[in-house]
Amino acid sequence: MRVFNFSAGPAVLPEDVLKKAASELLEYKDSGQSVMEMSHRSKEYGEIISSVEARFRKILNVPDNYKVLFLQGGASLQFAMIPLNLKKNGKADYVITGQWANKAYNEGKKILEANAVASSKDKTFSYIPELDSSKFDKDADFFHICANNTIYGTRYTDFPDTKNVPLVADFSSCILSEPVDITKFGLIYAGAQKNMGPAGLTVVIIRDDLIRDLGDSVPTMLSYKTHADNGSMFNTPPTYGIYILGLVLEWIENNGGLAAMKERNEKKAAMLYDFLDNSKLFKATVSGKARSLMNIPFITGNEELDKKFISEAKDAGFINLKGHRSVGGMRASIYNAMPVEGVQHLVEFMKKFEEDNA
Amino acid sequence: MRVFNFSAGPAVLPEDVLKKAASELLEYKDSGQSVMEMSHRSKEYGEIISSVEARFRKILNVPDNYKVLFLQGGASLQFAMIPLNLKKNGKADYVITGQWANKAYNEGKKILEANAVASSKDKTFSYIPELDSSKFDKDADFFHICANNTIYGTRYTDFPDTKNVPLVADFSSCILSEPVDITKFGLIYAGAQKNMGPAGLTVVIIRDDLIRDLGDSVPTMLSYKTHADNGSMFNTPPTYGIYILGLVLEWIENNGGLAAMKERNEKKAAMLYDFLDNSKLFKATVSGKARSLMNIPFITGNEELDKKFISEAKDAGFINLKGHRSVGGMRASIYNAMPVEGVQHLVEFMKKFEEDNA
Repeated sequence: MRVFNFSAGPAVLPEDVLKKAASELLEYKDSGQSVMEMSHRSKEYGEIISSVEARFRKILNVPDNYKVLFLQGGASLQFAMIPLNLKKNGKADYVITGQWANKAYNEGKKILEANAVASSKDKTFSYIPELDSSKFDKDADFFHICANNTIYGTRYTDFPDTKNVPLVADFSSCILSEPVDITKFGLIYAGAQKNMGPAGLTVVIIRDDLIRDLGDSVPTMLSYKTHADNGSMFNTPPTYGIYILGLVLEWIENNGGLAAMKERNEKKAAMLYDFLDNSKLFKATVSGKARSLMNIPFITGNEELDKKFISEAKDAGFINLKGHRSVGGMRASIYNAMPVEGVQHLVEFMKKFEEDNA
Repeated sequence: MRVFNFSAGPAVLPEDVLKKAASELLEYKDSGQSVMEMSHRSKEYGEIISSVEARFRKILNVPDNYKVLFLQGGASLQFAMIPLNLKKNGKADYVITGQWANKAYNEGKKILEANAVASSKDKTFSYIPELDSSKFDKDADFFHICANNTIYGTRYTDFPDTKNVPLVADFSSCILSEPVDITKFGLIYAGAQKNMGPAGLTVVIIRDDLIRDLGDSVPTMLSYKTHADNGSMFNTPPTYGIYILGLVLEWIENNGGLAAMKERNEKKAAMLYDFLDNSKLFKATVSGKARSLMNIPFITGNEELDKKFISEAKDAGFINLKGHRSVGGMRASIYNAMPVEGVQHLVEFMKKFEEDNA
């Protein structure tokens, strides 16, 4: 029996997607082969990757002057690729809103002068700092943010206006969760393993003017131009992960697109936050408008009770509710593929646990 | 109906592996989740990756002083990672036996002084050059070869003795095809998409002394130490690809291990080479001991007839027989997962074609 999986990533996928993938695993349509076995240069696979890109562009309303790249290496490799590719004046601004934003910043420091223009570290990253645009460097090569902070459960609701400085954002844990105005960004990147598909696929949306010829100074595979010039086929892309992303995109379309995802995600998050705000036992660690729709950390305030809850929840079929070790407590990641019933049942279970442990 | 797939990669996988993967796709054992949905830090996934590594080490007899790393980016990223990580004296020797060996060499040139000690370019890479060890640089940081040349269908049968210089080899298209003495090498790398599993997983076998602290000079993700220190879990690895590799390794074990693979691969290759050597229409483009067991290019000598053959073969259920554009003609890639019957049927089809076009 399938459980309710609240993992922060790799994470739950829509059951319809998994069923379709299972039914096609031995033979895709009438191709005589599994997608895993297809030459990436074959007509069959060419149709798959083209349709995935077209659907991705349509769903996210990606303008024509942006490329969509299917890469490998996760957000962690992007932390290096971004400064390597966008470096011109040799400096960039970073906002530090959690461990991942901080990792991006530290990797940036290896390559250019990285400036932390704001941080929410003083309160365990439980908020998004107010940004004072007078502190932004007008000559920065880019301005980096993490749009949704998986570990701490915060997100930007308004994106900073960085004028002529390209805004670069890690969307790993919120991509496809709601509509987004791509034109505000120079570059958006996301690992697939939260809202898009299996781990091992990274999607980059990059504005054409940021794709540059880096000459011999950077490894070929770390240049966006390499991948942009070759339609993500410079070498063999993660073909099966791209196919699964395609199934996820079909599922999003069949379920109303990003507007419907947003509505459903707000509904799920509201159910859990409302319960937490009214509970005598549990409480959310983030308050106000920075609350993430995707990752909801909460605590009882008593470590023993947290442990008991996580253990009993697991036995009841709610798995991966343990919070990140740097925050403790619990965290429910409720990505697109988490059904409304999953959150409903979790809230019921929490109510019961609260009564039993009053 | 499944076809016989002679793709050079991504390539055919064992039908038993695909069936097992399909049956477990919605729920792995009694975990309540797909492997794709598992947190890479979970107990369940921890057991998978540990058992895959253990089985890989056992099958390939990897000594204890070598690490096995599960990475991303394909051989193409290794072309950069190898010189970045192994650079000490700032020079390395390369043998140019094909396009991939040449790509490795060109990428090496970006990073250090790369010397081409031998090449078989004069005869369209149809042989492995004799190596004169007096030309090897004793102070080279490594000596690079491509063990099996996918495009041209050649392979090393004896590996050069490079003394104290670490021998580094691209095994992408021959790993797991026969036993190999790992102790002869400093580093072996291979993309998964030929003999191991789906594209998007790269396996590196590296001797401990070659794993070095690179400081801030190299992106974190491009340092072998990053991945070695974290058991390939510095960031989210390509979890599903690793799981499929595990199923492939089980299949190899159940079918007699690498000794049996070698015997079967030699049998398959001999069937095809014997036919080619006796055919009045077809002929192999490689002769002698350099003939690959994995990739067998052949021609009729008449481009129109080649086209006709490829087209009729496809209609008969033998797909991806078109040779690489730089060689022309045909190529049959017959990796571990290609059943003996696949080659038998192909030879029968070729005989019939030869009769019909005499």
